[in-house]
Amino acid sequence: MTSDQQPTTHLLGPDVDRARYERGAAVLDAVDGSGGQHVVAALADIAPALAHHVVAYGFGDVYNRPGLTPPQRQLVTLGMLTALGGCEPQLEVHVNAALNVGLSPVEIVEALTHAAVYCGFPKALNAIFVAKRVFAERGLLPVQPPAA
Amino acid sequence: MTSDQQPTTHLLGPDVDRARYERGAAVLDAVDGSGGQHVVAALADIAPALAHHVVAYGFGDVYNRPGLTPPQRQLVTLGMLTALGGCEPQLEVHVNAALNVGLSPVEIVEALTHAAVYCGFPKALNAIFVAKRVFAERGLLPVQPPAA
Amino acid sequence: MTSDQQPTTHLLGPDVDRARYERGAAVLDAVDGSGGQHVVAALADIAPALAHHVVAYGFGDVYNRPGLTPPQRQLVTLGMLTALGGCEPQLEVHVNAALNVGLSPVEIVEALTHAAVYCGFPKALNAIFVAKRVFAERGLLPVQPPAA
Amino acid sequence: MTSDQQPTTHLLGPDVDRARYERGAAVLDAVDGSGGQHVVAALADIAPALAHHVVAYGFGDVYNRPGLTPPQRQLVTLGMLTALGGCEPQLEVHVNAALNVGLSPVEIVEALTHAAVYCGFPKALNAIFVAKRVFAERGLLPVQPPAA
Amino acid sequence: MTSDQQPTTHLLGPDVDRARYERGAAVLDAVDGSGGQHVVAALADIAPALAHHVVAYGFGDVYNRPGLTPPQRQLVTLGMLTALGGCEPQLEVHVNAALNVGLSPVEIVEALTHAAVYCGFPKALNAIFVAKRVFAERGLLPVQPPAA
Amino acid sequence: MTSDQQPTTHLLGPDVDRARYERGAAVLDAVDGSGGQHVVAALADIAPALAHHVVAYGFGDVYNRPGLTPPQRQLVTLGMLTALGGCEPQLEVHVNAALNVGLSPVEIVEALTHAAVYCGFPKALNAIFVAKRVFAERGLLPVQPPAA
Repeated sequence: MTSDQQPTTHLLGPDVDRARYERGAAVLDAVDGSGGQHVVAALADIAPALAHHVVAYGFGDVYNRPGLTPPQRQLVTLGMLTALGGCEPQLEVHVNAALNVGLSPVEIVEALTHAAVYCGFPKALNAIFVAKRVFAERGLLPVQPPAA
Repeated sequence: MTSDQQPTTHLLGPDVDRARYERGAAVLDAVDGSGGQHVVAALADIAPALAHHVVAYGFGDVYNRPGLTPPQRQLVTLGMLTALGGCEPQLEVHVNAALNVGLSPVEIVEALTHAAVYCGFPKALNAIFVAKRVFAERGLLPVQPPAA
Repeated sequence: MTSDQQPTTHLLGPDVDRARYERGAAVLDAVDGSGGQHVVAALADIAPALAHHVVAYGFGDVYNRPGLTPPQRQLVTLGMLTALGGCEPQLEVHVNAALNVGLSPVEIVEALTHAAVYCGFPKALNAIFVAKRVFAERGLLPVQPPAA
Repeated sequence: MTSDQQPTTHLLGPDVDRARYERGAAVLDAVDGSGGQHVVAALADIAPALAHHVVAYGFGDVYNRPGLTPPQRQLVTLGMLTALGGCEPQLEVHVNAALNVGLSPVEIVEALTHAAVYCGFPKALNAIFVAKRVFAERGLLPVQPPAA
Repeated sequence: MTSDQQPTTHLLGPDVDRARYERGAAVLDAVDGSGGQHVVAALADIAPALAHHVVAYGFGDVYNRPGLTPPQRQLVTLGMLTALGGCEPQLEVHVNAALNVGLSPVEIVEALTHAAVYCGFPKALNAIFVAKRVFAERGLLPVQPPAA
Repeated sequence: MTSDQQPTTHLLGPDVDRARYERGAAVLDAVDGSGGQHVVAALADIAPALAHHVVAYGFGDVYNRPGLTPPQRQLVTLGMLTALGGCEPQLEVHVNAALNVGLSPVEIVEALTHAAVYCGFPKALNAIFVAKRVFAERGLLPVQPPAA
């Protein structure tokens, strides 16, 4: 995301707050790729402050912390989005994000197969069919089951 | 869990179904420890079939699969239980489980700090206060923040 | 519920609205028993209108309709309360209600064992442990599994 | 809604219950406009009783009460629908309703930006994109951020 | 489902586990019909283990149990899917399933009208409009209200 | 909250980030009072970063924005916490907050009576009983119904 695409510049305070935003934008690009940029751009004409919070707090403050690796963060995120329900657009972004940070299709499928135990089959199925669309777009089907 | 404690023996079919149950009971012991055994025992006089399904399907069929390591499964689980809400008893079992399979207190705290981005602060706070009780019982407080 | 206990008399409009309320109070007594009366009484000094809506709409308009028998209504209700999560007080009322209208302990346990498939184990376990408390109070433990 | 469009006339009891329905239908028209009428009409051939309850209880009994202004009721409603998740059709009706009763686009956007703190970003984003569609239809984009 | 369509054969263990799967597939066919088969088939190239769990645990172990009749199971299921929210694809399968096992359109509509009391109108409306689509496909509209 | 009580000082970046935190702490004190301070203090030995995010993002960035008045923000918040379910500790803080910023007991009760329409009775009842406890502590019972 180049600086002239930043929809929320007017929300930036002095230097430190800009630093949070720019740090977050870099993480967002690396993790969510075009999916994240699309969300931020779509907020520009309605809720630029919300976009700023997603980028500066979500990605600049939280994703950027040590303590969990990027693949670990996506495992937690896939679990949450599956459990919340009704978050198919965000699941699409984060199945892509999971792949972007190095989780394999097998690990993603296992996470969602595991999710059925805790969330029940309907939410797990909704999530797996989002993953199937993403995998199809990226030429990752069929997924080979893990060797025992 | 010794065989004379198995509340669901009468549900076991022939040899293969018994194998699923016994495999699951071993995984349950290793992951959830006494928390898991307590749940199974508490179901004995009301819903032994549900206990059987937790053990044989949840732990025998799912937890036992390759594709995700035990710490990875607990990260997904912590995300789901935080997002579902109202699952404090299960969070207590699984914060313990997360420690049992090798996640550090820092990793658990990071997962829940991360959860606030997706689930909001109320659910993240409910989960962190469950973790605080478990950490206190196991002498793990204060948690040192991760080095930057 | 005798008329001098009715906390919401002041909300009653002319005769027909009173008829809705009185019809609902009779159904509430028959289905939820003292659990329902306790809820209505507890609302008297804070939200009598909400109590009126529970009684007149919930029980007078809906529960009183043909189309489903009282046991059928409790099966739907047990499914909903288990799925919503965090509704343990209402589950306690409605496990009692289910027994009051003639569902057996086995049918209630089966409904909650079935619920795990759709809601996941944590919510099903939370519900079954509410049922266990109610069954214990009413001397209904242990529950004998259904004959195959 | 003219009387010959009322799908639930057969549900109406004597005069008072009809009064509840007609009072509710007037409030529904004023608040939800065509969105509310569309829902009631769509229920006519499947669940006219449910339509009656929406109108007579939801709008006749509750919306019509003193204690909160119509804009205050829509702020509560926007918070609930965002938090529930999966209620995009109702959010569309109620973003329109919020505008109809005098909330400004800025107030609606602020409510949803605020919602992210309590519900997390995914649900807040789902809600804001519903608002964006409604605002676009009504020529209200771009929304000018509030002056500091 | 003929044996050469079984996507999860490689997951089957020895004879007993195969028995669970085949028993579940028969129940799935009887209850969910083509909707259930479609889900299982759609999982074949991404998550055959999840399909196996749906069939062997969900339908082979749970649906097949005594204690509740098939129509009773669908009443619980309709309640849960309405309450969970965001499960419209599963509601479509299970409104069909409810009809397949002998619940009448009136009973289904009553269950969803009842659901509004516990889940609120938005989730009840989302469910009833799924039912309306299914009833339309099966030529079951308009639904005649139950006689008082 | 005096500066020597700030548990998250070590998280503060240079001057602007400190400004966000201090602005948020002032808003948190004004809105949530001792309830908010208690939460922040309780996080000090386990998740000081989460406390920092609550204060700096939640209260410094969001609550502090123009566009909604403090009472309006609490109406949205009461709606969300009621709908989420399982957030009784946060409801207790925010019923107090609602009173602190000038909402009357009648307005709070009306918001929760309204909530039943969208969330169903169980969640509305859970919320109203939290409000009842807060009102009792503050000597605000009985609540007089609004004049028609």
